[in-house]
Amino acid sequence: MRMSNMLVPTLKETPMDAVVVSHQLMLRAGMIRKLAAGIYNYLPLGLRVIRKIENIIREEMNRAGAQELLMPTVLPAELWKESGRWDYYGPELLRFNDRKNGEFCFGPTHEEVITDIVRSSLSSYRELPINLYQIQTKFRDEMRPRFGLMRGREFIMKDAYSFHVNNECAHQMYWKMYKTYYRIFTRCGLKFRPVEADTGNIGGTLSHEFQVLAESGEDAILSCNCCDYTANVEKAETALQPGPSGEVELLQMEMVETPDKKSIEEVGGFLKVKQEQIIKALVYRTGEQLITVLIRGDRDLSEAKLTSFLKCDSLEMVTDQETISKAGLTMGFVGPMGLDMPIYADYEIKNMQNAVCGANREDYHYINVNLGRDFTLKEDSFLDLRFGQAGDLCPRCKDSKGVYQEFRGIEVGQVFFLGDKYSKSMKALYVDENGEQNPMIMGCYGIGVGRTGAAAIEQNHDKDGIIWPMPIAPMEVVIVGLNLNQEAVVQTCQQLYDQLMDKGVEVLFDDRDERPGVKFKDADLIGIPLRMTVSPRNLKKGEVEIKVRSSGEIIYEKVDKAVERLVELKEADLQEIAIKCNKE
Amino acid sequence: MRMSNMLVPTLKETPMDAVVVSHQLMLRAGMIRKLAAGIYNYLPLGLRVIRKIENIIREEMNRAGAQELLMPTVLPAELWKESGRWDYYGPELLRFNDRKNGEFCFGPTHEEVITDIVRSSLSSYRELPINLYQIQTKFRDEMRPRFGLMRGREFIMKDAYSFHVNNECAHQMYWKMYKTYYRIFTRCGLKFRPVEADTGNIGGTLSHEFQVLAESGEDAILSCNCCDYTANVEKAETALQPGPSGEVELLQMEMVETPDKKSIEEVGGFLKVKQEQIIKALVYRTGEQLITVLIRGDRDLSEAKLTSFLKCDSLEMVTDQETISKAGLTMGFVGPMGLDMPIYADYEIKNMQNAVCGANREDYHYINVNLGRDFTLKEDSFLDLRFGQAGDLCPRCKDSKGVYQEFRGIEVGQVFFLGDKYSKSMKALYVDENGEQNPMIMGCYGIGVGRTGAAAIEQNHDKDGIIWPMPIAPMEVVIVGLNLNQEAVVQTCQQLYDQLMDKGVEVLFDDRDERPGVKFKDADLIGIPLRMTVSPRNLKKGEVEIKVRSSGEIIYEKVDKAVERLVELKEADLQEIAIKCNKE
Repeated sequence: MRMSNMLVPTLKETPMDAVVVSHQLMLRAGMIRKLAAGIYNYLPLGLRVIRKIENIIREEMNRAGAQELLMPTVLPAELWKESGRWDYYGPELLRFNDRKNGEFCFGPTHEEVITDIVRSSLSSYRELPINLYQIQTKFRDEMRPRFGLMRGREFIMKDAYSFHVNNECAHQMYWKMYKTYYRIFTRCGLKFRPVEADTGNIGGTLSHEFQVLAESGEDAILSCNCCDYTANVEKAETALQPGPSGEVELLQMEMVETPDKKSIEEVGGFLKVKQEQIIKALVYRTGEQLITVLIRGDRDLSEAKLTSFLKCDSLEMVTDQETISKAGLTMGFVGPMGLDMPIYADYEIKNMQNAVCGANREDYHYINVNLGRDFTLKEDSFLDLRFGQAGDLCPRCKDSKGVYQEFRGIEVGQVFFLGDKYSKSMKALYVDENGEQNPMIMGCYGIGVGRTGAAAIEQNHDKDGIIWPMPIAPMEVVIVGLNLNQEAVVQTCQQLYDQLMDKGVEVLFDDRDERPGVKFKDADLIGIPLRMTVSPRNLKKGEVEIKVRSSGEIIYEKVDKAVERLVELKEADLQEIAIKCNKE
Repeated sequence: MRMSNMLVPTLKETPMDAVVVSHQLMLRAGMIRKLAAGIYNYLPLGLRVIRKIENIIREEMNRAGAQELLMPTVLPAELWKESGRWDYYGPELLRFNDRKNGEFCFGPTHEEVITDIVRSSLSSYRELPINLYQIQTKFRDEMRPRFGLMRGREFIMKDAYSFHVNNECAHQMYWKMYKTYYRIFTRCGLKFRPVEADTGNIGGTLSHEFQVLAESGEDAILSCNCCDYTANVEKAETALQPGPSGEVELLQMEMVETPDKKSIEEVGGFLKVKQEQIIKALVYRTGEQLITVLIRGDRDLSEAKLTSFLKCDSLEMVTDQETISKAGLTMGFVGPMGLDMPIYADYEIKNMQNAVCGANREDYHYINVNLGRDFTLKEDSFLDLRFGQAGDLCPRCKDSKGVYQEFRGIEVGQVFFLGDKYSKSMKALYVDENGEQNPMIMGCYGIGVGRTGAAAIEQNHDKDGIIWPMPIAPMEVVIVGLNLNQEAVVQTCQQLYDQLMDKGVEVLFDDRDERPGVKFKDADLIGIPLRMTVSPRNLKKGEVEIKVRSSGEIIYEKVDKAVERLVELKEADLQEIAIKCNKE
């Protein structure tokens, strides 16, 4: 395409409200344009990226035997009431009434609708398994939409749902989708990790997130340096780490006054002990039950782990003095001794010696507390409850040599094993070989399309702009013509443009009447992988200049070899990705 | 794809609420599934049709130099207030508030958004013309959604908008889009007519509808049997038809009593005259002004023509006695004599002799009224104001030999010359060569994607089901295997399936464990253009049976020639369409 005819309104200045790099660069490169908070227009170059990601997803989903369909955006409340999510979902669900006062919402996800389709279409075990997906616009009315396509309100998502006769079959599909996602993100040219993840409010019992690695990523990921194990910090398994080396003298426990010292920082500072010497006791409510959880003072409790262990629907930290008082306790001075409620402790508590803990009495702590001597817990009360962190030993490595490294990531896809959560409540049943009805077993699998594009930028950019991976670049080659008033330049550009198009290369021809500096800056900003400059100076030598955006490499090539060279460079990129893709 | 794995829930019974054939067949063929009134799921086969139509549209729009972008579905009220349509648009505009109580609507059309994008991105004459399009989900909250995809509430539409420096350039684009639409609907394999049309509430001064011909069509179209002229009945030009042949004695005008006889039927019956002998006088209000329009008693007045002639924004027939009384008239007895307001008359009034008309006195009419003798009108009060009809002489034919024929049609696309309607109100200005600001001149061009699919069915079906044109068929070939417990049948099916796929043919393999009758019925219902049956009986002769859905032709072909034959049959269909396409 000729840039003079295209809508590519690049900007010199970074718009004020764009904080993250991908948002800034997509705006500046004229790829998106804000319409309202969290709602964006995809301009032609931005849409090309979206469509390329969609096509890769579509090809791989079809390859895995999934079938594409399309569900509406406007959904009747009725189905959501049936699943119970009409009440459960908060204000993120955009609700409205139609002209006849019927209740509707803009679909943020489609478990209800797909379950309705399947329960009314299929009924026999012979018709299962089935895997159905769509690529559709969704809306989530985020409180604080931000970061451009990274956390928008209106966004494009691929969502797939599979239905099975049993857990085994559903697990097979889960891992097939896992592999499919691996291929999809590899084919997008991204560096990423599949990460064991929490199932959150989608529900289910098994989940992986696909995290695109980027320093700016919101999520912290731990990955073993020996085995394949990778997980979110909140989910990453921690083993009982080796205890303190050498003998330590167990001192006499004492109650000491710690007036108004409640936080770990305050107590540590006042008693002049390290935070890792303090036992933090947190009170939670699950249903009607209060429980206390012990964890080392310098650690963070993973509520995801606790929820998963307790198998509870709700979990809430108790932070009001009133509730604490009813249990005979004082906020800030809770400790394990003499507590009249279930106590759970993170494994690390086992390694603590001469520790500090609350004395369950206002303004008092114990010092020199030792497990086994001063308080005891049943063995099954010790659990893996803390966030993992870099340097922790990997519990999955048999020889215990693997150590966690930390990465930052951006979640672009997630696979869930749902079980019968929706099929039970919505009565999606099938008849088995014996004529008996059972709930179908489900999985669901999502990819944020726009988010994948944004994550690609977070991972691949420099100070000058975007560096698109070849497979999702809006264009593969940009031809920059300098001095377009010279016939030779125009002719060469046009000729090379036509030849590249004939070879199936996607070419943007910057034929604008602009200064060279503007054209080069825009080419770098937009991030097209290969740039070919046609200038009078090089033409004198019968050459053109090729610049590889990612490496900065400059290649001078004869005019009549230029097309071949560009095709080679493109193919080399794609070939490398294809090899990675088939490795897995 | 294998049918045993696909979601194709065909139905034996026609759902109660489906009235039109396309709606019935799409439901029965398992292509769509209703979610709520006017809101449908597109199941896999239905979506394939939609995507094929989209792709044809996309290819042809790109070919015409238009650029694809994507605007959101959720639009802020702000822009709609700016254009004035927030108040103007009725309850068809689905309005809602977000969690922060901001006003939004679900976009039924995107003139406002695109104008906002263009005005904020482009400013110079050098950046124009530009033609931008999207294929996006729209919502119109119809009072009575019906006919499936034909008049749904949520629907997929291609909408394009072009911006120009002057009328001439905009007209060029208008005709380019006209040709593009011609190619699009030809490539879809449809019989259609471009029809001169009214601009309705989109506005503008020139418009064509593309009407797919079908007996069940909602719209009546007139087309000259000699020249190319085709128009909606309400827009079709009518010439002054030849007057009565032979001399007629002009009788004496008389006022006669017609007690309580108001309608044309009542007056005609009471006075025993034909309706074509009666002058119908209709009172309209345009702004503050009342006018009277005369038309032959058996004709329908085209309000579109009247609006266009008067160049007015609003036109409303006066039907309340109160307003009529203020003008000194009585409803049902209005006539041209002595009226104190502007009078317009359809051309045909000139040919009426010894006519009947209201006497402007309650319960009285005149008989034997003759123009020129009993009342006069200025020559420029005579206009083309009636609906055209079959048999009318075509006014565009120079030799006056062309005669209108009537067709029924389904509107699937419309092109509009908008002028500066939106650019003026929304200040979409460009700077011309002299540094002066002018409003851009716009055109807009829409295609209902789902509607095109539905119209294709209305045009192409029989009692057994759909007969898809090859280019938009959900699959090109269906293989029906009979007695799939026999190894030879399964092997042959599989082999032919693989070979056809290798040749790029889209194949559905009906491998279900069903009776032959069920499979044949489903194949006809779904309407796949070519059916190949593999049965033990034919295999004994080394043959398969090929059936052409459209003609019913049966062909027996050797197994090893079957693929070649099917490819030939497919290509012949596509070739025929390509020839038509390039003819224009």
